[in-house]
Amino acid sequence: MVVVSAEARLKQLALCLPKAPTPFGAYVEAFQSGPLLFLSGMLPVAGHVPLYVGLVGRELAVDEGYAAARAACLSGLAAARERLGSLDRIRSVAKLGVYIACPAEFLDHPKVADGASELLLDVFGAHRLPPRIVLGVSSIPLGMPVEIELVFEIES
Amino acid sequence: MVVVSAEARLKQLALCLPKAPTPFGAYVEAFQSGPLLFLSGMLPVAGHVPLYVGLVGRELAVDEGYAAARAACLSGLAAARERLGSLDRIRSVAKLGVYIACPAEFLDHPKVADGASELLLDVFGAHRLPPRIVLGVSSIPLGMPVEIELVFEIES
Amino acid sequence: MVVVSAEARLKQLALCLPKAPTPFGAYVEAFQSGPLLFLSGMLPVAGHVPLYVGLVGRELAVDEGYAAARAACLSGLAAARERLGSLDRIRSVAKLGVYIACPAEFLDHPKVADGASELLLDVFGAHRLPPRIVLGVSSIPLGMPVEIELVFEIES
Repeated sequence: MVVVSAEARLKQLALCLPKAPTPFGAYVEAFQSGPLLFLSGMLPVAGHVPLYVGLVGRELAVDEGYAAARAACLSGLAAARERLGSLDRIRSVAKLGVYIACPAEFLDHPKVADGASELLLDVFGAHRLPPRIVLGVSSIPLGMPVEIELVFEIES
Repeated sequence: MVVVSAEARLKQLALCLPKAPTPFGAYVEAFQSGPLLFLSGMLPVAGHVPLYVGLVGRELAVDEGYAAARAACLSGLAAARERLGSLDRIRSVAKLGVYIACPAEFLDHPKVADGASELLLDVFGAHRLPPRIVLGVSSIPLGMPVEIELVFEIES
Repeated sequence: MVVVSAEARLKQLALCLPKAPTPFGAYVEAFQSGPLLFLSGMLPVAGHVPLYVGLVGRELAVDEGYAAARAACLSGLAAARERLGSLDRIRSVAKLGVYIACPAEFLDHPKVADGASELLLDVFGAHRLPPRIVLGVSSIPLGMPVEIELVFEIES
């Protein structure tokens, strides 16, 4: 197996990370304790402007939820690169949380969450996939449909 | 105080763990970073088939929610044993999250969460009880009523 | 920059912490693994009696949600001091989760979450602000409007 670096994979995939997110309040986007890098909840935004608004399964279709999860996860990669200098300092993804604003009747959470998971798979490879927590929630800041929680393990 | 090992306690209680869960998507069931073992969200399933479907406090009674929390937590023990070889490598439970799909009017979250907490108490003993986060959420993958988050501290 | 200790800041602010919370079930309020101190979900309570009940954006206004978030976070500081002896053993806040019971239409999550964030800012200073996860949930134990998750990094 040839392990391709995360930054090299981004180039192969022609993926440009968005601008690193900036806080909506009195918090920081990332904090490292020992080898663990904890990120703030990542949203599908451009700057502070939502890219998607609404509940998945009501205003938004599943494929829009998938796209929103991917966009939020791209923001998480941007936040990690901003903090670390390079995604190549990431050894593994320790936790992926995908929180989806949706009605009680919604059933397709995994398909939405795959928007984040498949991006991580593309960038870090199958040997560095994280465990995943997926929940349907009643709402997300500014009415956005998806919020992503990421904890990375960093090379020491 | 005689500390009985977790595997010995399972035998005393005649508790059989279910088959270890397998992913619904591009993620893994467990990831260890240093002494911490992070699990994916655990669900009350047999294979990929839900054992319980519905909201607690609407389709399901509190005692069914309790049973679903216990079933999801048993899946978590199975995932941990699969990863570690034996539950006796677990030193402590660092985090228990219990997420309950329920209406806004639901009040009995602690009674549902005790389905997981009392299993952990039975298996690991009172000196190894974890801190607990309990939330009511709008929905859980495949319409299940409870999802469990577990972080274990592993013997080095 | 003069770094003022957290305990000294509490005195400057004339802030009295409430009694440390006690569990509603089979769990503990705090668990330390290496440098990380994980707390149970913190609620706006006095003893086991809720200080606030209802959804933010339905029964409760945003400023009441802010006050509830602040009260829950004060409980978290009390739990940490009870476990550690002094807040001055806290090096940083590694994670702040703010979970708000609110309707799907609610948009002002950041303003509610600032009730916790601004307390942490006051007590620990801007150089020790945590990353933050904010979610709207369907309900919280005993019908309370806000639950707070805190992970601290402790001096070794």
